[in-house]
Amino acid sequence: MPKTERWQWYVEEFSPAELHHHALNHVHYAGRTAFQDVGVVESAAFGKMLILDGDTQSSQADERIYHEALVHPAMAAAADRSQVLILGGGEGATLREVLRHAGVQRATMVDIDGEVVELSKRFLPEWSAGAFNDPRANVIVGDALEFLDEDRGSYGVVISDLTEPLEGSPSNPLFCDAVFKQIKARLQRGGVYVLQASTAGFHNLSLHAKMARTLRRHYAHVVSYVTHVPAFDNDWAFLACSDAADASHLEERAVAEYCSQLSGENFFYDAETHRRIFALPLYLRRALAKDGETF
Amino acid sequence: MPKTERWQWYVEEFSPAELHHHALNHVHYAGRTAFQDVGVVESAAFGKMLILDGDTQSSQADERIYHEALVHPAMAAAADRSQVLILGGGEGATLREVLRHAGVQRATMVDIDGEVVELSKRFLPEWSAGAFNDPRANVIVGDALEFLDEDRGSYGVVISDLTEPLEGSPSNPLFCDAVFKQIKARLQRGGVYVLQASTAGFHNLSLHAKMARTLRRHYAHVVSYVTHVPAFDNDWAFLACSDAADASHLEERAVAEYCSQLSGENFFYDAETHRRIFALPLYLRRALAKDGETF
Amino acid sequence: MPKTERWQWYVEEFSPAELHHHALNHVHYAGRTAFQDVGVVESAAFGKMLILDGDTQSSQADERIYHEALVHPAMAAAADRSQVLILGGGEGATLREVLRHAGVQRATMVDIDGEVVELSKRFLPEWSAGAFNDPRANVIVGDALEFLDEDRGSYGVVISDLTEPLEGSPSNPLFCDAVFKQIKARLQRGGVYVLQASTAGFHNLSLHAKMARTLRRHYAHVVSYVTHVPAFDNDWAFLACSDAADASHLEERAVAEYCSQLSGENFFYDAETHRRIFALPLYLRRALAKDGETF
Amino acid sequence: MPKTERWQWYVEEFSPAELHHHALNHVHYAGRTAFQDVGVVESAAFGKMLILDGDTQSSQADERIYHEALVHPAMAAAADRSQVLILGGGEGATLREVLRHAGVQRATMVDIDGEVVELSKRFLPEWSAGAFNDPRANVIVGDALEFLDEDRGSYGVVISDLTEPLEGSPSNPLFCDAVFKQIKARLQRGGVYVLQASTAGFHNLSLHAKMARTLRRHYAHVVSYVTHVPAFDNDWAFLACSDAADASHLEERAVAEYCSQLSGENFFYDAETHRRIFALPLYLRRALAKDGETF
Repeated sequence: MPKTERWQWYVEEFSPAELHHHALNHVHYAGRTAFQDVGVVESAAFGKMLILDGDTQSSQADERIYHEALVHPAMAAAADRSQVLILGGGEGATLREVLRHAGVQRATMVDIDGEVVELSKRFLPEWSAGAFNDPRANVIVGDALEFLDEDRGSYGVVISDLTEPLEGSPSNPLFCDAVFKQIKARLQRGGVYVLQASTAGFHNLSLHAKMARTLRRHYAHVVSYVTHVPAFDNDWAFLACSDAADASHLEERAVAEYCSQLSGENFFYDAETHRRIFALPLYLRRALAKDGETF
Repeated sequence: MPKTERWQWYVEEFSPAELHHHALNHVHYAGRTAFQDVGVVESAAFGKMLILDGDTQSSQADERIYHEALVHPAMAAAADRSQVLILGGGEGATLREVLRHAGVQRATMVDIDGEVVELSKRFLPEWSAGAFNDPRANVIVGDALEFLDEDRGSYGVVISDLTEPLEGSPSNPLFCDAVFKQIKARLQRGGVYVLQASTAGFHNLSLHAKMARTLRRHYAHVVSYVTHVPAFDNDWAFLACSDAADASHLEERAVAEYCSQLSGENFFYDAETHRRIFALPLYLRRALAKDGETF
Repeated sequence: MPKTERWQWYVEEFSPAELHHHALNHVHYAGRTAFQDVGVVESAAFGKMLILDGDTQSSQADERIYHEALVHPAMAAAADRSQVLILGGGEGATLREVLRHAGVQRATMVDIDGEVVELSKRFLPEWSAGAFNDPRANVIVGDALEFLDEDRGSYGVVISDLTEPLEGSPSNPLFCDAVFKQIKARLQRGGVYVLQASTAGFHNLSLHAKMARTLRRHYAHVVSYVTHVPAFDNDWAFLACSDAADASHLEERAVAEYCSQLSGENFFYDAETHRRIFALPLYLRRALAKDGETF
Repeated sequence: MPKTERWQWYVEEFSPAELHHHALNHVHYAGRTAFQDVGVVESAAFGKMLILDGDTQSSQADERIYHEALVHPAMAAAADRSQVLILGGGEGATLREVLRHAGVQRATMVDIDGEVVELSKRFLPEWSAGAFNDPRANVIVGDALEFLDEDRGSYGVVISDLTEPLEGSPSNPLFCDAVFKQIKARLQRGGVYVLQASTAGFHNLSLHAKMARTLRRHYAHVVSYVTHVPAFDNDWAFLACSDAADASHLEERAVAEYCSQLSGENFFYDAETHRRIFALPLYLRRALAKDGETF
């Protein structure tokens, strides 16, 4: 990159003492919706990136690591995948991954921020890759709280693709026992509820552990799994919750069979990757075994 | 500025070892013209800023310091101001300042980059403030070299508002004796040729000194003057060249009278400011007295 | 500077939205005294730099601009220079400049932070250049408040070389009417009290204006003067206060004569520089003419 | 961290377009040895960090992830651990991990940069934790090339803990077939040669793949394994090479038994972690299966 094209930078602040600087080739969009600050940029290292409230949501170069990790273990472990509910997921990539399985009859996605959905369609079409036009997609722009109050559906898989529940974030009110109960009420017997569940580095795993501890009050199996996502600059954790299925004990054969049913090719996930992400480093298992705060 | 609005930064590189970071509220435009990389951003400290090839050209908050300094000393010192020529100056603010004097009958501006002119009209209308629509304005999109080859005009004031003549910059070919001769040929007896003439800090004055030394071959009076421009993060130098007028010896009364003829109010320039900017710090006078490289 | 020597940086924060990054060749010292955080670093652009509480105090390359500006106008304007009092000035460069005048019989310097004085002797000997060993120097490590309570001296020049009176800074309690009265009580008839008096950019001149307004309650002449100091990245202001002398009206001849009495050569200050720094830009004069907050 | 303690930063450059900024509480040491640029700093997020030629080598907070990953899989897989050779490893933490196994009779460590060894003893004693004083440690300050030319030893485990073989780095000449042959000549039948082997992110895995391809010419089993190291901000890869043992197929029971023989507690490595790090993400397996450059 010549000097003259290196004046625009995206600085992600992990803490006031740790910053990550990305040189930008272009800023496609920068503005505010009714709910959050939005940036769509093009970085030299990761291609297009979606930034919400200053935090990287996904990058063109590695969003498949994140979205395959979020969607497929739960889908593979669930007894039935015909009805899927997605909370959040405005970019459309979670929806895209869900719809890659022909067994899905209806994928209902509820995102509060319709402007992010529209910006994603416009600037990040590679993320949804046509999923918004799939007849099986039921995209609702609205508050997940209100949706859960009124919905009477029943789902084999519920996927929470919400931003971090930070103070002031639109996802903050969704992290509490009352909402976790409503979600469970919508889950079929044999169903799996999966969440993107914050960072899992040795130095930033407390929010993840708090989520895990809270959800153990609701499900027999609450399983953490973790993968590195380069654009996030962190090991990223997920939680697969179920009363029936323990996703960490899924047989290799079952994962392989599930993957063979997907249209297109995976970039990240298969049976060996499943083994990797569900085998946790010792320090994380120790931290998850401790008592502590809950929501 | 809340955290969430601080992810976009403009980083100006003075040298690989000295960087200035500006948090941006917004990027209005970022792209390439046929000639250069262009950014129009909004910084927290300086408001809107125009950036060409990674260097700050002017900021909403203090462009009047730069443009009043560039235009008025020369206009005040010139014997006749009815015909003015501006080389560069795409933002239109140099034109605006020139046209503030009712004695100007025609201001001809030649800028190679018509896209910068259009972007400035669209995003930086405060800079030109209507000047492009003034019937006295004659705005030519074209190469200053070709213009000077063909032009037969005669000007009381010639103002060079070009970018730094760095390697690869569109202004680079304009800094040579041949062009300086052409410019002088267009200057009326009693006329003044003024240039924005690079930085004048003790550690970055060599380009300015090189310009001064070169122009002394062409004019009886080649006078440096200097003001700090906060958005440039530097003391900025100008050169007022003339065979007739020594701008540094202009009487206070003459400056005051000139200023009283301008429409609107000045922000920066008046007789006392004139005294300030033409009185140079000792180290700069010493540096300018030395021999050295020329163009 | 090769890549491998560019991992250490000094980041000066002007505001959360404006940062200046200096690549460091070396960190000579970094620690805390009883009063403040201290850094002595070597930057590629400015050589050695002293940093107190995260703010640049002076740099090897241009400290003479700052210290000559602080000391000489007041010394030149004062009726008598035999007794000089310096508040702060731990680096020893203010003392050095004072002692360059043979007419000084005693220069008393009071700095609260003896550790900064010792660190300056060790790491920044170029700043004091032997001044601490001059028999005319009387260096007191102690609280200026206590010193002023007890001192019965009488001074022709009082120089305040304190850090910005920010919340929590050791200099903060020294900016109030009670202390200003004590200082005035120590000033001889015909004496001049000069202060380094914060930044004077159009966007950061409010603290300077507040100081000026406060001191006008105490002195007949309260004169602002301003120079750019590259290592500070700002136009820097000073205040020369006196009931007798108006430093801004000092005759060129008087400045020249004063300068001729100094041992060694000046880098920055002489009669022409005096004219420059006391002629203020229009926007600053306007701001200083307005009413507003005082200490 | 208060503002005043946030002026020192360590900036790690992954590429000119991707930078990681660490606020420093302290710089313990910064200088040059005969071979490389060395920094010992204390960051807010990671505690003490060792930096060689501008790249993070290890951090107090997570060096155990790196060093346990480097040492224990190879030690667990080797037929005999009584004789161990370490190339590089100046901090002493690789030596420390090796010596945690009572079956080690002699650990020979060869590092070219004795100054780094001494700086580590002085500033990073937690890294070696007494290992340099263990009677089984044989620490040689010297060139690994010369050592390999003359050594007649025979080792069950050879551990390469060298810096990246970048242009100009002291480790650069050690990455070639001639040296790989010498190392193999020193390896016992049943022995394992393990290397830290660069980054393994989807966007920066080419150097790792090049190492793997080269070593496949020398060994029957060349197994990549990968863990995220937060202070490196990257997934980090290692290569376990052997004609006898395939470390990726080590039985859980064997790993558990090996770990039970270590003194003290592991932070990162055990049988489940072994499963994690040897199960590679799909995109990495695909990249490793392709042909390409070799050393």
